[in-house]
Amino acid sequence: MRTKKLKDFFIGPALENSQLESEKLKVVWGLPIYSSDTISSVAYAGEEVLMVLFPVMALAATRSLIYVMASIIGLLVILVFCYCQTIDAYPQGGGAYIVGADNLGEVPGLVAASALLVGYILTVAVSSCSGAAAITSAIPAAEPYKAWIAFAIVCFLTWGNLRGVRESSVMFGLPTYFFILSLVVMIVTGFVKVLVLGYAPPAPEVQMQTMGDIGLFLFLRAFASGCTALTGVEAVSNGVPAFREPSAKNAKLVLVLMAVVVGTTFVSVAVLTHLYHIVPQEGVTAIASLAAGIFGHGSVLFYVFQIATVIILSLATNTAFAGMPLLLAMIAQDGYMPRQFAQRGARLNFSNGVLLIFIASSVLIFLFNADVHSLLPLYATGVFVSFTISQAGMFRHWTRSKTGGWRHKAVINGVGTLICFAVCLLIAGTRFLSGAWLVVIVIPLLVLLMKHIKRHYDKIAAALTVTGDPAAELHRDAPAPKILMPVQSVNRPFLKSLNYVLSLGVEDIEFYYVSSGDGREETLRRQLEALEIPGARFVCDTTLLRNTNEVLLRHVDEIQERMVSGQTLTVVLSQLTLEEPWANTLHNQTSLQPKLQLNHRRNVSCISVPYIS
Amino acid sequence: MRTKKLKDFFIGPALENSQLESEKLKVVWGLPIYSSDTISSVAYAGEEVLMVLFPVMALAATRSLIYVMASIIGLLVILVFCYCQTIDAYPQGGGAYIVGADNLGEVPGLVAASALLVGYILTVAVSSCSGAAAITSAIPAAEPYKAWIAFAIVCFLTWGNLRGVRESSVMFGLPTYFFILSLVVMIVTGFVKVLVLGYAPPAPEVQMQTMGDIGLFLFLRAFASGCTALTGVEAVSNGVPAFREPSAKNAKLVLVLMAVVVGTTFVSVAVLTHLYHIVPQEGVTAIASLAAGIFGHGSVLFYVFQIATVIILSLATNTAFAGMPLLLAMIAQDGYMPRQFAQRGARLNFSNGVLLIFIASSVLIFLFNADVHSLLPLYATGVFVSFTISQAGMFRHWTRSKTGGWRHKAVINGVGTLICFAVCLLIAGTRFLSGAWLVVIVIPLLVLLMKHIKRHYDKIAAALTVTGDPAAELHRDAPAPKILMPVQSVNRPFLKSLNYVLSLGVEDIEFYYVSSGDGREETLRRQLEALEIPGARFVCDTTLLRNTNEVLLRHVDEIQERMVSGQTLTVVLSQLTLEEPWANTLHNQTSLQPKLQLNHRRNVSCISVPYIS
Repeated sequence: MRTKKLKDFFIGPALENSQLESEKLKVVWGLPIYSSDTISSVAYAGEEVLMVLFPVMALAATRSLIYVMASIIGLLVILVFCYCQTIDAYPQGGGAYIVGADNLGEVPGLVAASALLVGYILTVAVSSCSGAAAITSAIPAAEPYKAWIAFAIVCFLTWGNLRGVRESSVMFGLPTYFFILSLVVMIVTGFVKVLVLGYAPPAPEVQMQTMGDIGLFLFLRAFASGCTALTGVEAVSNGVPAFREPSAKNAKLVLVLMAVVVGTTFVSVAVLTHLYHIVPQEGVTAIASLAAGIFGHGSVLFYVFQIATVIILSLATNTAFAGMPLLLAMIAQDGYMPRQFAQRGARLNFSNGVLLIFIASSVLIFLFNADVHSLLPLYATGVFVSFTISQAGMFRHWTRSKTGGWRHKAVINGVGTLICFAVCLLIAGTRFLSGAWLVVIVIPLLVLLMKHIKRHYDKIAAALTVTGDPAAELHRDAPAPKILMPVQSVNRPFLKSLNYVLSLGVEDIEFYYVSSGDGREETLRRQLEALEIPGARFVCDTTLLRNTNEVLLRHVDEIQERMVSGQTLTVVLSQLTLEEPWANTLHNQTSLQPKLQLNHRRNVSCISVPYIS
Repeated sequence: MRTKKLKDFFIGPALENSQLESEKLKVVWGLPIYSSDTISSVAYAGEEVLMVLFPVMALAATRSLIYVMASIIGLLVILVFCYCQTIDAYPQGGGAYIVGADNLGEVPGLVAASALLVGYILTVAVSSCSGAAAITSAIPAAEPYKAWIAFAIVCFLTWGNLRGVRESSVMFGLPTYFFILSLVVMIVTGFVKVLVLGYAPPAPEVQMQTMGDIGLFLFLRAFASGCTALTGVEAVSNGVPAFREPSAKNAKLVLVLMAVVVGTTFVSVAVLTHLYHIVPQEGVTAIASLAAGIFGHGSVLFYVFQIATVIILSLATNTAFAGMPLLLAMIAQDGYMPRQFAQRGARLNFSNGVLLIFIASSVLIFLFNADVHSLLPLYATGVFVSFTISQAGMFRHWTRSKTGGWRHKAVINGVGTLICFAVCLLIAGTRFLSGAWLVVIVIPLLVLLMKHIKRHYDKIAAALTVTGDPAAELHRDAPAPKILMPVQSVNRPFLKSLNYVLSLGVEDIEFYYVSSGDGREETLRRQLEALEIPGARFVCDTTLLRNTNEVLLRHVDEIQERMVSGQTLTVVLSQLTLEEPWANTLHNQTSLQPKLQLNHRRNVSCISVPYIS
């Protein structure tokens, strides 16, 4: 009861099933919840591109950044088109998993599911680590604790999501708007200072020469690095059922609004990065350098912007917390994941999925020591694998269904497939050694695991189902069970168990004692005989190896061999139960171990008779 | 079975009870095992004294070190006398706990026991950390991993001790002799170089002036710091039963031999420290500086000596591994500690005690970041508290028993009591703020805990014991039990459980279903009625909160209230058991949770009927 109260305090009281509908999202809250991931990548995507361009192009890199970013936004527009079609076709939620499994078959669906799971977990790791980097950019002294800061962010979000969806909306929506606002303030200030007030930002002293202009290969590498900006697009189409009715329309609206916000801000930030001559630096993020350049380092607005960045990044993490448990529940309902993921918790959310994200992302944070730059290649690979399958699935959907305007729609998704596949190859090709190989190993392993789980569930379901008439499987004249009562001494718990056995009216009782060679068995035999139980026998085995439980189990197996067909052996164990939970650790719990092992014997039932002191 | 094989591989196959005698120690192995702790303190005790003297006396500190060490060896001689008397009086093992409890009463005995437990655990922490310091003195690059090195040492010893006593003798005895040998080589070389060959060691350049000569207070502080050298003396008297017969005589011989070895080497090392002008340094232990001064830094003999030091320190740790499980077993047999500590493991040692040392000392190592200097004050305080009680107990023993020569013996132990008490006050007084306060808090807490555990065991024992005639407590005409069968669907596991219930011949059966409001109950009712079980009822409750188990338990409580006196309710749960252990995690284990909670209900027995797929 005490643990229940604790649970109520932390995650709120249990909600009824019928409260599910009222927990759904309006557009005004759906936009921040599902787009925080994409919008927040403004904090790291530009820097990733710069880190590719800068070593070759030096200061000229910032101009190319604008073109690369514009191309990425072009890709975003295409993806939004494609995903609007997906939402229309799959109003019940059309993530890559559903679309892939529905149209391309089991394995592509599972590949998409694995890629999505990997992507979601990396969203959490990347965003929380990037949030930690924003903090350490403003407070360099916090640098050694970066991983712990990222972990604290994940803990906070786990707690928020265990409380449930509705509170998430306000809690996680408002800060996204706050970030967008501060981003707009920064962009406007930045342009006004340069274009209206004629301010000329100082060029940094860079001790290196341009090694050449941008070529195709450099452009593609930069483009691949920047594609991390698009990782959140899938989330909306996957989360359609979480939107308020009409959910498909609302989801599409959110997708388009997101593209507008993201497109405007990303390109503006890229232009400002060029105007303010921002270059990659150790210990300070590019976006923090830009904010410092515009607002002045140490100014109030600089700190406000950093705080907003930290918050949006912390919340970007929430896209995964909103999407992954829903996805896991779908996979689990199909039998490819442990079914515990399909159960709603006390607050109607899929709490086991939330806990899985928590554990997996925490491990990644500490493994990569909160280094965003090394996490990103893994992230982008996983995401674009799922994009490709999703688009290919939609293409197949239209060519197969041939509903109105299918040609037009198939062309859009076909182009989407080709582009996503190309990006996929591009990322895997240019960043294979930087971590993309890990994803290439993990996805097939996950697929195998899921197939294995599915096979197991199918096998068990077949084994448990009664095929003929259930009544025919009942044995109404089965022989009465044999009773085996292990005994240590004739104390109150033993007498209580014996009373219970007598109330069953069973006559075939064996008292069983495992001696350690200390000669106590004779006393015990006399005490038991004095009880005058009709039909009861006393059997004693001796062991000098202190392995009482093993001897008991061996004895059980011997009895089993001698039993007539249809008869069961019943082992009666007294269970001493103490009111104080800590006190149980002071007793050997001698009944617990045999009980667990007796469950593995086919015709042996086990009765616990509690004795409460 | 697989875990058993793994266990056999790591700790060896199980031994029979009768193999206990042959596991006992000869003097030649008892000496290294029980004296490694005391002998090894040559690696840190001198440095502790120097660290007190040096800031005041600068280079003159090394001369005073000789006097302080000689006084400490004087104390050792007195303690050996006192403890020989203890061994005579308590051949069955007379640690401070037994002697205190026997002669002074429960609380002093428990105080001694707590002090000893604290001391043993700190022995492990101090010695392993000091071993790690010897490694980092020789290999400065290993400095950042000091705590991990200490932890590795503890892990290795835990493993050795889980394997059992006899292998310990050879494994841990030989290296002690190796250390003594290399110590003797160093001492002889050191003296020969200076006294015979006329070598004049260079005085270090110390940028400080002598602030004064040694006064009484400084001497006492230095003495208190050096008393850490004596911490291993208790172990022999506590471990008497581990010696081969005649065990008392052998134990005394070990004690005297130890005093001779320790006395000679400590004073020699102190004289050499003076001759070679060794002063405390950051990152290098004093004994390592001395070895470098005598053998030449980087010479083969220097490294041999460092290796011997590391090994002896690692093994000093073993004194605690040899003594504490034995002590814990005694305390547990008296009911003051969980009785799991009194059970011998598969290899006849008290494995739970070994594991407790492992856990507690590992925590200390990481908590204090392997800093020997901060651990030592805690260590010395705990040990001298137990010395004092032990001596006071022996004094009381003689004055009460008045056997032959009791006056003479009482005087020796009386003097021992006063000296130990004085040292105790001295350490607590001069090093209170350095950590001795922690021991002052922990010991009373441990005493309270032990009294609490004892009270609990006494209460339970009283509750379980049958006071009158056991036969009178049997109810031979108790009413037949009611059966409650929770049901999910009419599948094979359910039919197997039902068959079992029918074989019991019980007529009062209730099928119970908790609906989540999905209307499945009508199908279920029809299926159950089709089985035509005489006397069976179907009851259905509905919950919208997904708390099926809670509803079941509430229903059980309601039935219990309506039952006639003496009747029991029996809850029959099917237990689906899968052959692959991992597969069980894929199922909800719905029967496990109610089973654990049903144990808390007085008249409710629980039957598990396994279904093995």
